[in-house]
Amino acid sequence: MKKYVVDAMGGDNGSSIVVDAIKKYRSQNEDVFFFVVGNENELECLKNVDRIEIIPSKSIMKMDATPLEAMHMRDSSMYLAFETLINKKADAIISAGGTGAFLSLATIKLRLIEGLRRAALIAPFPTLQKGKKTCLLDIGANNENSPEELVSFAKMGKLYVEAVYDVKKPKIYLLSNGTEEHKGSPTSKAAYQLLKEQNFPGFQGNIEAREALNGEADVIVMDGFTGNVFLKSSEGMAKMMSSLIKKAFKRNLLTKIGYLFARKGFKELQETMDYKTTGGAMFLGVNGVVVKAHGSSDAYSFYHAIKVADALARKDIVSQIKEKMNI
Amino acid sequence: MKKYVVDAMGGDNGSSIVVDAIKKYRSQNEDVFFFVVGNENELECLKNVDRIEIIPSKSIMKMDATPLEAMHMRDSSMYLAFETLINKKADAIISAGGTGAFLSLATIKLRLIEGLRRAALIAPFPTLQKGKKTCLLDIGANNENSPEELVSFAKMGKLYVEAVYDVKKPKIYLLSNGTEEHKGSPTSKAAYQLLKEQNFPGFQGNIEAREALNGEADVIVMDGFTGNVFLKSSEGMAKMMSSLIKKAFKRNLLTKIGYLFARKGFKELQETMDYKTTGGAMFLGVNGVVVKAHGSSDAYSFYHAIKVADALARKDIVSQIKEKMNI
Repeated sequence: MKKYVVDAMGGDNGSSIVVDAIKKYRSQNEDVFFFVVGNENELECLKNVDRIEIIPSKSIMKMDATPLEAMHMRDSSMYLAFETLINKKADAIISAGGTGAFLSLATIKLRLIEGLRRAALIAPFPTLQKGKKTCLLDIGANNENSPEELVSFAKMGKLYVEAVYDVKKPKIYLLSNGTEEHKGSPTSKAAYQLLKEQNFPGFQGNIEAREALNGEADVIVMDGFTGNVFLKSSEGMAKMMSSLIKKAFKRNLLTKIGYLFARKGFKELQETMDYKTTGGAMFLGVNGVVVKAHGSSDAYSFYHAIKVADALARKDIVSQIKEKMNI
Repeated sequence: MKKYVVDAMGGDNGSSIVVDAIKKYRSQNEDVFFFVVGNENELECLKNVDRIEIIPSKSIMKMDATPLEAMHMRDSSMYLAFETLINKKADAIISAGGTGAFLSLATIKLRLIEGLRRAALIAPFPTLQKGKKTCLLDIGANNENSPEELVSFAKMGKLYVEAVYDVKKPKIYLLSNGTEEHKGSPTSKAAYQLLKEQNFPGFQGNIEAREALNGEADVIVMDGFTGNVFLKSSEGMAKMMSSLIKKAFKRNLLTKIGYLFARKGFKELQETMDYKTTGGAMFLGVNGVVVKAHGSSDAYSFYHAIKVADALARKDIVSQIKEKMNI
């Protein structure tokens, strides 16, 4: 039986979507147990349900809490979720709460895996090749990274896609502003040299942001500031185009009729683009399976975040990283 | 009469699209003269045309030329275009050739404006607000920038949108990984403090990449590596969604019929997204109007690059920067 701790309170859409996601996942999977942390009244319908234990909490973590503030909000659902993870020896923690506070608490409470200087957020992205995902890290846990840290991200990313996606010989790239060896920021250029010197298995060189989602790469490595810009600008452009597509169909009666005919095609488009099915980002490098669901998650995407956590816990990704980081 | 030098050879689509663009612009504007640098045979149809002079060249600049290689390719159209710009005292230069070589030659041949340490590429982006453009710099001229350089980019960007788009009190932002003052890379955080200390006119703080194209900002400042990632990831996502839209409509007979009804709406979408109408990126900070057309320009977008150069030359953007950089 795997045991998962869920912070039910942190997301933009309140606890009800989390409750729905847990109910569904629990009913479909016999072998899981949930500790659900949150407001007792809101979690009423999970009371006395088999394989669910409610941990009552009084407050919700501030969205923009500093690490110090996060450590002091001891009656918040997020803080209590970490306490529960440790005390109950649970197998993973999932939250849709503020990223900064969540990653700070994860680092402080669970500590970095020995030998690592920084943890990183990794998430799969949809690509032009149907069904193929490309995993990017760090997509925003850090404000800056050293070349050595980028090398450790490459190692963790490799282990991650091998474990989660069963990729045999993953292709690893560095995100850069040109494909040639001499292109890049001072940090990415130095990381390139380190990866080249150690003949890093599967290292393919640089990839430009425009080609990142063409389906060629299994893992793309970047510093956290750059990763945040990549993630957010891609999301921004996708949102902008979605809103323009809607506007295009709503233009007049003819375009509305057009939608009726074309909607099956656009449903497929939406599925390809749907970040919701990618579930959550994992915080790789701490002693625990830590999954961050998107702040604006609905029940569907929170369900997928639980699924990701379940897969990672069963693959024992943390032990794999511990064992193999020095290869 | 304004005089413009055009490198006819550098783009992916050869000289014919450049020839078409020049013909059209010349016929619509009485007050312009073109020096067209390129293969004499390919430019045959511009011979003996009023207000056009052909400067024959023998080679095409290598796409990935290093600065040193660029300086040695003296019979290339790009090199000769810069020689022509200087010798004929022309008002602007336009090329769709390799960015690296073009910016290197611009810096070496025209030199930086006194007091500046780095030049920057600036370009307008389409936004969610119809007709509103947001200008971003540096979108890829540099691999790294200091906080002081970001401040000088903010100054140049402000002058640029005031001159080109007649924006009265432009809103200036720093691209960052969070809106709060303490968020950012070490460089962007330090730039934030410098802009705040000097009460930089119109400085609004940080903006995240996801919100960058919502139409709120007039200018967004970032280092060149980050700018390249922003530009290329936005382009990549736009390309991916366009290809998915096409696929959605081509799915079957019904979706094809849907397209017939909806196409007017999608034509509008295409126009909003069309980077071609934004013409080219200007290289701000050197002693001259230097416009980089997209490598994959067609006649339509090259025409718009000429239009941008024409506007910038007539606004005398270079003198404005020289005069006002110390405000």
